[in-house]
Amino acid sequence: MTIPPHAYPPPEPGHTAPGLAAFLLAPRSVAIIGASDDPTKSAARPLQYLRRSGYRGRIYPINPHRDWVLGERAWRTLTDLPERPDHAYVLTGSDAAVAAVEECGRIGIPVATVLADGFAPTNPKGAARAARLREACVRHGIRVVGPSCLGVVNLRERLMLTANAAFAEAGLPIGGAFVASQSGSVIGALASRGKERGIGFAGLVSVGSEIDLSIGEICAATLDDPDIDGYLLFLENLRHAETLRRFARGAAERGKPVAAYKLGRSAEARELALSHTGALAGEDDVADAFLRECGIARVETFEGLLEALPLLKRVPIDEPGQRRDRVGVVTTTGGVAAMVVDQLAVRSVSVVGPGPETLARLAAAGAAVEPGRIVDLTLAGTRYPVMKAALDTMLTAPEFDLVVAVVGSSARFQPELAVEPVIDSAKSAKPIAAFLAPDAPDALNRLMRGGVPSFRTPEACADVIAAALRRRRPRERSAAARPLPAGRHMLDELKAYGLLDAVGVARAPTVALPAEAREPPLLPFPYPVAVKALSGKLAHKSDVGGVVLGVPDGAGLLSAVAMIRENLARQGLVVEKVLIQPMVRGLGEALIGYRVDAEVGPLVVLAAGGLLTEIYRDRTLRFAPVDREAAREMIGEVRALRALSGLRGQAAGDLDALAEAIVRFSHFADMPEIIEAESNPVIVREAGRGVVAVDAVAVAAVLANS
Amino acid sequence: MTIPPHAYPPPEPGHTAPGLAAFLLAPRSVAIIGASDDPTKSAARPLQYLRRSGYRGRIYPINPHRDWVLGERAWRTLTDLPERPDHAYVLTGSDAAVAAVEECGRIGIPVATVLADGFAPTNPKGAARAARLREACVRHGIRVVGPSCLGVVNLRERLMLTANAAFAEAGLPIGGAFVASQSGSVIGALASRGKERGIGFAGLVSVGSEIDLSIGEICAATLDDPDIDGYLLFLENLRHAETLRRFARGAAERGKPVAAYKLGRSAEARELALSHTGALAGEDDVADAFLRECGIARVETFEGLLEALPLLKRVPIDEPGQRRDRVGVVTTTGGVAAMVVDQLAVRSVSVVGPGPETLARLAAAGAAVEPGRIVDLTLAGTRYPVMKAALDTMLTAPEFDLVVAVVGSSARFQPELAVEPVIDSAKSAKPIAAFLAPDAPDALNRLMRGGVPSFRTPEACADVIAAALRRRRPRERSAAARPLPAGRHMLDELKAYGLLDAVGVARAPTVALPAEAREPPLLPFPYPVAVKALSGKLAHKSDVGGVVLGVPDGAGLLSAVAMIRENLARQGLVVEKVLIQPMVRGLGEALIGYRVDAEVGPLVVLAAGGLLTEIYRDRTLRFAPVDREAAREMIGEVRALRALSGLRGQAAGDLDALAEAIVRFSHFADMPEIIEAESNPVIVREAGRGVVAVDAVAVAAVLANS
Repeated sequence: MTIPPHAYPPPEPGHTAPGLAAFLLAPRSVAIIGASDDPTKSAARPLQYLRRSGYRGRIYPINPHRDWVLGERAWRTLTDLPERPDHAYVLTGSDAAVAAVEECGRIGIPVATVLADGFAPTNPKGAARAARLREACVRHGIRVVGPSCLGVVNLRERLMLTANAAFAEAGLPIGGAFVASQSGSVIGALASRGKERGIGFAGLVSVGSEIDLSIGEICAATLDDPDIDGYLLFLENLRHAETLRRFARGAAERGKPVAAYKLGRSAEARELALSHTGALAGEDDVADAFLRECGIARVETFEGLLEALPLLKRVPIDEPGQRRDRVGVVTTTGGVAAMVVDQLAVRSVSVVGPGPETLARLAAAGAAVEPGRIVDLTLAGTRYPVMKAALDTMLTAPEFDLVVAVVGSSARFQPELAVEPVIDSAKSAKPIAAFLAPDAPDALNRLMRGGVPSFRTPEACADVIAAALRRRRPRERSAAARPLPAGRHMLDELKAYGLLDAVGVARAPTVALPAEAREPPLLPFPYPVAVKALSGKLAHKSDVGGVVLGVPDGAGLLSAVAMIRENLARQGLVVEKVLIQPMVRGLGEALIGYRVDAEVGPLVVLAAGGLLTEIYRDRTLRFAPVDREAAREMIGEVRALRALSGLRGQAAGDLDALAEAIVRFSHFADMPEIIEAESNPVIVREAGRGVVAVDAVAVAAVLANS
Repeated sequence: MTIPPHAYPPPEPGHTAPGLAAFLLAPRSVAIIGASDDPTKSAARPLQYLRRSGYRGRIYPINPHRDWVLGERAWRTLTDLPERPDHAYVLTGSDAAVAAVEECGRIGIPVATVLADGFAPTNPKGAARAARLREACVRHGIRVVGPSCLGVVNLRERLMLTANAAFAEAGLPIGGAFVASQSGSVIGALASRGKERGIGFAGLVSVGSEIDLSIGEICAATLDDPDIDGYLLFLENLRHAETLRRFARGAAERGKPVAAYKLGRSAEARELALSHTGALAGEDDVADAFLRECGIARVETFEGLLEALPLLKRVPIDEPGQRRDRVGVVTTTGGVAAMVVDQLAVRSVSVVGPGPETLARLAAAGAAVEPGRIVDLTLAGTRYPVMKAALDTMLTAPEFDLVVAVVGSSARFQPELAVEPVIDSAKSAKPIAAFLAPDAPDALNRLMRGGVPSFRTPEACADVIAAALRRRRPRERSAAARPLPAGRHMLDELKAYGLLDAVGVARAPTVALPAEAREPPLLPFPYPVAVKALSGKLAHKSDVGGVVLGVPDGAGLLSAVAMIRENLARQGLVVEKVLIQPMVRGLGEALIGYRVDAEVGPLVVLAAGGLLTEIYRDRTLRFAPVDREAAREMIGEVRALRALSGLRGQAAGDLDALAEAIVRFSHFADMPEIIEAESNPVIVREAGRGVVAVDAVAVAAVLANS
């Protein structure tokens, strides 16, 4: 075999765009390894789809048993080919796929996409295959999409390198959205649903289990593609969070919005993500915070993902001093508009009504309405001039940042009445969005072509608006994720206080006493006191009788110590020391925690203390470092802490000091040996009197060489 | 004018089906009062739509200014007509509409439907119009649909008595669903979306503001219509709850399921319902409990309403001892199925996986899968025999009560692979439901025709499954709603304890002491005690310094009384008596409340006590009477009370006694003079030691003659 020289720059290990994007999404030639001659088989689809779509590159079906496949010339092996293809799609079974990628690597094919599954790290065979695949990447510099990749599609190049049955379709509309999905089926679901909705795509990639190329890397390779104006991600879990973070920053720099649907609201789905891919199942609020800090808009409805980009392009990312969250609603049908208002409100987006001046302007423009939260033109006002006047007025009124038009049954057969005025207002400075009550595909497509973000269901409409308003500019700097150490050990409470001292979090004065002491010590604080077993082996001292509160005097102290020793002896634990602290009173309490997440990096958690955290999941989190502003936001997000903000005439707690303590917890990110630290409770005293940690636990890494 | 004799039985005041249903939905002749000659006007639509649909009855356009309307013979007045029409649709403005209905009544037309708005009780003109309309109903026995009624549609009779633009459509499919909506636009939205989905309707009625005929009465009139096999309700609020309750019971007796979408999850939407109709905005959990006790399945998504009935017909209503909530999922696409699992789990529906025996049967039948929560056949198993074998196995396996089939991209062009087997399994004893990942309208319509409940979005799929599993048999007996009295007065704590004694709820022993007492009284319980101001004017004693806890002795008692007098004097209140109670300790506390809701009747509330109720809205409710089983369910629904069930080795509270106290609170429904009663907190002691109310407030009716 003679491989002709390659016109692209030769592949380098770890090469990236434009080389990667070209080989991946615009190859001049593709090999289809394992192409089937049986047209009913999945392995026959890529060749069929490429031919049907009119792909203009050269196609090399590879089949060890046939010279002809589906009526085309085929090759027995890669080495028989007259040139080195830019991209190989490997359709064979798992073991043969590994061998095929190795072969691709050897002859210098820059990108291989692998369909097979059977690479899950949860079983030894899968792990071994994955290791071989990774080794081939390292050795030959070949980049791999998958395994479990159902397809790489670039509609502009008519590249249908996919076994997904939805791409049997001709005439899928081309548009600016780029889809990357951890689920292969979703690329077909979005492509077909997009066609129905008049939403086109630039490309769609099923990223599979990301053994080599991650979803972030694949998207990043396309960032400078001028035809791509936004990204839709379907995420089962957060693998390779760092590359995703970098891609998201790059997208934000270029003004290309990113929307994501992420599985795992429920523990059940997180468990599925685990079994599906072997990645650690993350907690959902961690994923939520991660996507938010990346500036990725997380949607909650599947069709919301499909419909998200036009609105994300219109709603500005938060700028200091710029309001963008005051939503006005204009409608021809009050009852249906109320559905949208309801759906917005359950997502914490509040619809505001027109003020007196705007009401007067509406009336003067021929769109008089009753005062209220909705500008309801009613059936009588379902006419072009009335709707247009209402839109013109609202889009220039100071009380609204975004206007939602809800159109009733007329949208189906008479779009000229209330849909056309929306399209004619699309170029306003303020964003506008539309929901149509009836089934009205033509009107929806006209809205889409007219540049109006539009929605098929009230739920998706509210979902995307809420996601757009929650979206932030990505953080410039985050403490990077790092692999967790193999070993870890719990520090005792006294050492944990030392850590609090190091980052500057106030904690209760503490005296350590040998458990066999016969005399009460001289204390630098008055009775009553709290007495606690000191042990690195006890995470929940209170649950096993290791804590006595409100000890009134020295005699009581000795009895308390004796009791603690007995209680723990029953658990088979020897107490060598106890800690003595004053009883600290305050207005309330909180939990502050720090931990390093293996996927997404170090983060700080704030929660209501005690059982409330467990029962109500009343907690919030941010990635380190956390500044004062973010810490104040966190305090606002924990519902139980509202009781400390001076409600109903009650005294306000020292929330400034609490915010400062949160900031300081985030400084643990500068101590790589600390994996976890938590104070529960931190007592919040009256405003001006500070906060005091009265408990602390911490977990440190055991380094390999220590 | 001579009115020919009427073939129907003559209308009687308050007449009901079959007479009402016939006049309303199958009139032999209709008058269109205010029919417009301008084809672009809404008032021209009913005549156009009736002609287009081929309505076979006689149509009498009435227009005072014209002899011809849209090319048809018209009449100047009702009295010019050659016969008395069965039904009149009144399209004129508000005042003219009132006059028209009076005229209809005078000549004996049994049913009039009114399009106009302008009848809101929130303004004097609207209230006056509504009163005149009601008077016409009483005087003439005419029954009125509306006002604000956008239409009465009976597709079987080709009766398109509607101004809703969606009914310009020919060929709307006829089916078994009957729609009744408080929003007029929704009938058009459902009809058009139904057509797209292959879902047909028997009839659709916009009930408007229900000044005479309520949504419950209209639906009840159709209960014995054999063509109608289920109901879809769109509710803005719960007016006329009693007729709705009666209808729902009648529907359940006939095995006809009822689904409802109810606005008002958010306070914003409840406020809109208020302004829209003048009805009191109810709290959402009250509406939820009401619909549940009526056996109405409440859905949360708009398209879920459209898609609900086929599944509701298949999932049995709860029967003692019958499991129906174990959901199995079979799929060709794991990632998309995980979306459905996620959506189900956030709605508290848990998907279960196959057990070892079923896994073995699957493998033996040619559908071997990995163990897990989902039966994932993968792309390789996307074939008829594999899917059919998997379905057959799951539908006969003991671990599943309902099977959801999630089909990937093949559903779009190759339904024979994985959709047909679902249709071929439709007749199984167990219900089956389907979600298709791609846009696949043909496959969805085939599923629908094949009798398989099927869904366009994962959200609606999970929504309807959850609603079907939550549905109960309607309660046989509920304490009826009753109008609230004009006057009400708060009882003081001592009188409120008397009420607790009357229903048999344990409360703390209480000694009353004149506030000017100079000597501490002899107490029948030991110190420390609680001291509280006694006043019928104070709902929140603690907030104004009216309570002192932990008073250690007689001297402390006198100081406490003095302090309370001073605190309340600062509020301008004179304290005449204080109450003294022992300090009652327990494991936790709860709030039990009773109140009469004007719309839906007397209900009992259980909540976490204190601030938690406010912060977390952690409460549940049932309508009176509440039995022990329902009371235990309520305790299970309040999250904070989980801490009393013996978690993490903690002592369990006396939840039996708490349940008994809830039951006894519901007995207030037998005391019509009591409007509200509440104990907050009720102290829950250890199991076997009972519960004790340590506070009580109550509100009684002031009767007109007292």
